[in-house]
Amino acid sequence: MSKGLTSRNEDYSQWYNELVTKADLAEHSAVRGCMVIKPYGYSIWEGMQAFLDKRFKETGHSNAYFPLFIPKSFFSKEASHVEGFATECAVVTHYRLKNDGNGNIIVDEDAKLEEELIVRPTSETIIWNTYRGWIQSYRDLPILVNQWSNVVRWEMRTRLFLRTTEFLWQEGHTAHATKQEAIEETERMLDVYADFAENVMAVPVIRGKKTETERFAGALDTYCIEALMQDGKALQAGTSHFLGQNFAKAFDVKFTNKEGKLDHVWATSWGVSTRLVGALIMAHSDDSGLVLPPKLAPIQVVIVPIHRSDEEFEKISAVANELISKLKSRNISVKYDDRDTQRPGFKFAEYELKGVPVRLAMGGRDLENGTIEIARRDTREKQTISRENLDEYIEKLLEEIQLSIYNKALNFRNENIREANCYDEFKQILDEKGGFIFAHWDGTVETEKKIKEETKATIRCIPLDNKQEEGVCIVTGKPSTQRVLFARAY
Amino acid sequence: MSKGLTSRNEDYSQWYNELVTKADLAEHSAVRGCMVIKPYGYSIWEGMQAFLDKRFKETGHSNAYFPLFIPKSFFSKEASHVEGFATECAVVTHYRLKNDGNGNIIVDEDAKLEEELIVRPTSETIIWNTYRGWIQSYRDLPILVNQWSNVVRWEMRTRLFLRTTEFLWQEGHTAHATKQEAIEETERMLDVYADFAENVMAVPVIRGKKTETERFAGALDTYCIEALMQDGKALQAGTSHFLGQNFAKAFDVKFTNKEGKLDHVWATSWGVSTRLVGALIMAHSDDSGLVLPPKLAPIQVVIVPIHRSDEEFEKISAVANELISKLKSRNISVKYDDRDTQRPGFKFAEYELKGVPVRLAMGGRDLENGTIEIARRDTREKQTISRENLDEYIEKLLEEIQLSIYNKALNFRNENIREANCYDEFKQILDEKGGFIFAHWDGTVETEKKIKEETKATIRCIPLDNKQEEGVCIVTGKPSTQRVLFARAY
Repeated sequence: MSKGLTSRNEDYSQWYNELVTKADLAEHSAVRGCMVIKPYGYSIWEGMQAFLDKRFKETGHSNAYFPLFIPKSFFSKEASHVEGFATECAVVTHYRLKNDGNGNIIVDEDAKLEEELIVRPTSETIIWNTYRGWIQSYRDLPILVNQWSNVVRWEMRTRLFLRTTEFLWQEGHTAHATKQEAIEETERMLDVYADFAENVMAVPVIRGKKTETERFAGALDTYCIEALMQDGKALQAGTSHFLGQNFAKAFDVKFTNKEGKLDHVWATSWGVSTRLVGALIMAHSDDSGLVLPPKLAPIQVVIVPIHRSDEEFEKISAVANELISKLKSRNISVKYDDRDTQRPGFKFAEYELKGVPVRLAMGGRDLENGTIEIARRDTREKQTISRENLDEYIEKLLEEIQLSIYNKALNFRNENIREANCYDEFKQILDEKGGFIFAHWDGTVETEKKIKEETKATIRCIPLDNKQEEGVCIVTGKPSTQRVLFARAY
Repeated sequence: MSKGLTSRNEDYSQWYNELVTKADLAEHSAVRGCMVIKPYGYSIWEGMQAFLDKRFKETGHSNAYFPLFIPKSFFSKEASHVEGFATECAVVTHYRLKNDGNGNIIVDEDAKLEEELIVRPTSETIIWNTYRGWIQSYRDLPILVNQWSNVVRWEMRTRLFLRTTEFLWQEGHTAHATKQEAIEETERMLDVYADFAENVMAVPVIRGKKTETERFAGALDTYCIEALMQDGKALQAGTSHFLGQNFAKAFDVKFTNKEGKLDHVWATSWGVSTRLVGALIMAHSDDSGLVLPPKLAPIQVVIVPIHRSDEEFEKISAVANELISKLKSRNISVKYDDRDTQRPGFKFAEYELKGVPVRLAMGGRDLENGTIEIARRDTREKQTISRENLDEYIEKLLEEIQLSIYNKALNFRNENIREANCYDEFKQILDEKGGFIFAHWDGTVETEKKIKEETKATIRCIPLDNKQEEGVCIVTGKPSTQRVLFARAY
């Protein structure tokens, strides 16, 4: 608190790391690559969970829970899946420790597992192995299940929220009788994610499909939402996979269709993770700290009393308490910070750092005049207003702030979508401006790989509503029918 | 569904296993000892989570998240803790798999961890290692944190919900400036658990303290709530531990107190798990299936139409839909089962099996007469009543059912608390009747062990409000000042 943040211009990456720590969101743990999500950071995740879980249930899904461990052999069953996930994972080989007689705790070699267990990096294999027992007939379909859980992917370079060895997420796994139904589900959940990103997180996103290279290991199609951070780098904020019959075939999941014939089941999976907390921070926050959209702010309004005497404090508190009960009845979360161990200036800085959308301050003159000082975190505007109908005013202000944060991010994103018509221009934009670049590409894995190696930019997606346009690939000059969306990404 | 359940009298254990499977609550997974919690079973757990989480927050706690993995060396730091937990746990030794060149996926020996990681069996060690960085002064205290997570304890004999290698739970971990405050917290959370068990789960419990033998590894005192199942066996339904300064000392967590002196921090931890779903099933259910208290029933009311024509079906549906919207506005969860693929009798049996508290059925005659058939799951009473003010009637009925289920369990429990005044009587009651037995004990570990070995009964607790009474130990004849509570237990 005592020292300000590094500014975004100075060092964006350093700014992010400092902000996550100083705003009490998360910290590194004693276990390499694993984070501790602190109460304030976790409450943002709880807010995200509540919104998403409600939408999942409204779209017909139920939650369930599958084992943390996956037998090693399960990974080998879907060829491309094992390529993608088995390489970096936590492997359980023993089930007991013992005392070596010298007071040291060691692994008991007598307790070696016959088959190693993998800590789930994602659950398609264990879930489809289970679905085999649940599905006999078309009457058992669709299965619309979601799981909230932790997963582990062994990462060499980690960053709090953005890339950690263990992270929290939800993974939806659905089973359908027809290809068409599975594709509709894939698209429906992408829409749920996009709606959540834009209307709750206030982060505008582009919906699209991944290229073959960037596809989920085992999917026929990966749909994604792509967001732009303030440093001009993209961030994949959610994915929804059409898995075709790949996992049904790998795990022998068949059903009798309406015509009485046996067929393999069609599958989707979709997920978002605690990575979204990182995206939320990077999309909106400023050099003074977090900027949180009201819908995800754990504290939406804070009231700070400014008093010269106990008597004045009592009077201010009486007014504050009345306001608090009115705000609460509007479902607005409010905190009254009456700590006498800290000065108002310290408190102001703390709530700026923590991104509380609306800060109220009330002093002796406000008491007399029937006024209050109100400050918006997003614009940092301050004004003194009448306390009449204040609860209604604040409710509207919170809505306005939510929209305003979104529009700011939207303007920034739109200003940072550019077209490049040759490779030099492409590289120049990347280096000088960053952001999204629409460019023609010949559709080959080789060219995609070359661009990635030379510029660190990847194809983020082929937007769903992409304009068809004749052109030539910026690298090979081969013909192309549409521009695709490039960026450097987290 | 086609075949009924084994009756409780015939084989209680078999009855339980069949019920868990047939009511779609959970099943064994491909991973030894790990279960799959199916959507219906998981929704009961979600109900429990919602009630408990609200109470935790009302009592000042916040949620946070700590790593799944714990470095092996952490376990050695608290001597009695390692004894209790390090023996049976999942050990991660490697972080990569590879292809052996012959198409087999094998563990990559080049990716061996320097220090093995333990999949958390409980999180005291990793959390207290983290708290060291959070606590400097009394101003940083108390820390009131809870975590919802999965934990792993390698179990040789497992039963769905009751004892599984992986289970879901919550674990509270609090830090305090004084011993007194920590003891108050331990007791407060025991009360939260007891209140939840009795008023939400409708399961009466006895609050008490564990003996030294049965104490949590690393605690100075373990408080517990003990419930009685229908087969006369006890089940520990929640524990709250006063940890003293043990973990603060092991992880060097000190703070400057108000007097400016350094002192070790005082700790508590407390938890309940998915085991409670097993307790809920065993406490109330009958030979026809689940009996769920309304407060935890995922579906509280089901409506089944009984029609002879499409026209009649339309009319019934119109009445049903009006009722549904009225029930929903009273926050009653209701399902209209209008499937035309199943006959009413099949549906009745299904909802009995799944423990839906209130079942409504409406046919042609009801339409004409303004009536409806209403059936209570708990008593299996059926009657035809007027549809006037039906929503209000149902709301009251649900409250009555909640209370009635509790009272039934309370009567059963009270009828099955007996006193034994000699060892022969003790053994006779255990073998012939089961239940709780109050008996005098000399207070030694040896006698406790002898009783356990000879009778399989353990001291469940020393009740908090225990009557003081002179007597002699049933085994050794040594003097005793109070009876303690014995039972065979899950």
